Amino acid sequence: MTLGATQGAQTKAAILRAARERFAAQGYERTTIRAVAADARIDPSMVMRYFGSKEKLFDAALAVDLRLPDLSAVPADALPAALVRHFVERWEGDPADDALLVLLRSAVTNERAAERMREVFASQVAPALAAALGPERAARTAGLVAAQLLGLGLARYLLRLPAVVSLTPDAVVEALTPALAATLGDPA
Amino acid sequence: MTLGATQGAQTKAAILRAARERFAAQGYERTTIRAVAADARIDPSMVMRYFGSKEKLFDAALAVDLRLPDLSAVPADALPAALVRHFVERWEGDPADDALLVLLRSAVTNERAAERMREVFASQVAPALAAALGPERAARTAGLVAAQLLGLGLARYLLRLPAVVSLTPDAVVEALTPALAATLGDPA
Repeated sequence: MTLGATQGAQTKAAILRAARERFAAQGYERTTIRAVAADARIDPSMVMRYFGSKEKLFDAALAVDLRLPDLSAVPADALPAALVRHFVERWEGDPADDALLVLLRSAVTNERAAERMREVFASQVAPALAAALGPERAARTAGLVAAQLLGLGLARYLLRLPAVVSLTPDAVVEALTPALAATLGDPA
Repeated sequence: MTLGATQGAQTKAAILRAARERFAAQGYERTTIRAVAADARIDPSMVMRYFGSKEKLFDAALAVDLRLPDLSAVPADALPAALVRHFVERWEGDPADDALLVLLRSAVTNERAAERMREVFASQVAPALAAALGPERAARTAGLVAAQLLGLGLARYLLRLPAVVSLTPDAVVEALTPALAATLGDPA
């Protein structure tokens, strides 16, 4: 790798970091290429050169990898707690920089971001649950499992409802696990 | 009431309707007084005369009344289904014009709207559950009950996840009731 390529990679990473923070704080609409460039201490033309447009910058900054584990290896009765714990641990790290929450912030008013959320669900959540529960049971339950986990992210990290914020991470897992277990239901 | 007062009330109502639609579609930040005035077929100066500022117009348009019934009159084992059904029926009517969903759309990126969501929770949801469950049990569970109901609103009406949209209203009530029952737990 040449020195130029290294610098290019560093510049791209700085732009993506700045873009993620702006999109997180302000949503898609209010974020401008100019502001992202200023945060990354770079000329706006360089942002355009690397990413082409605000839409493409958004797509690159908000590539969401849920990093779901192989749920087929999780015993059925441990699955609800494993799911809740996975997302709580993900979000407790740094919710302001979490690509899923950043995407959610934009998805409620921007159709492009909403479509990305639906893709994340279809390509990551649904297959992971199908591997654990079988296709029929997953098709029946995955939507409401996603709704409950997104509801937690919304209430605790975006709206910051005091009654949800005040719980410790362990208490969140403990309190939400029975609800997820009830949603997944019996193997029937 | 004079003719002038009647016309004033009609004009205010037209402005509020236009504002709710704009805030719903675009969120707080992208909505302008000018656009609301154009939708209401009125001069922007009239909007300012009636409401004073975009912030005050937002507050007036987004006054959320959840219209929760007296939950102390609902038998304990019917409470989870009654809660889910109340919100599903509310949202199935016209989600685009529902003040709670409109407020939610703005609350993920606007602190003023988020504060309004916390007020709605504290002044309407928490007391209604306390009347049904007693203060201690309500304090323990109301936050996650709200998270689950908001998660449903988010997934079905804002993100429109196909796996949640495809359920009939009755199927949503049936599928989410056990989760809410598990969250409320035993009277303990």
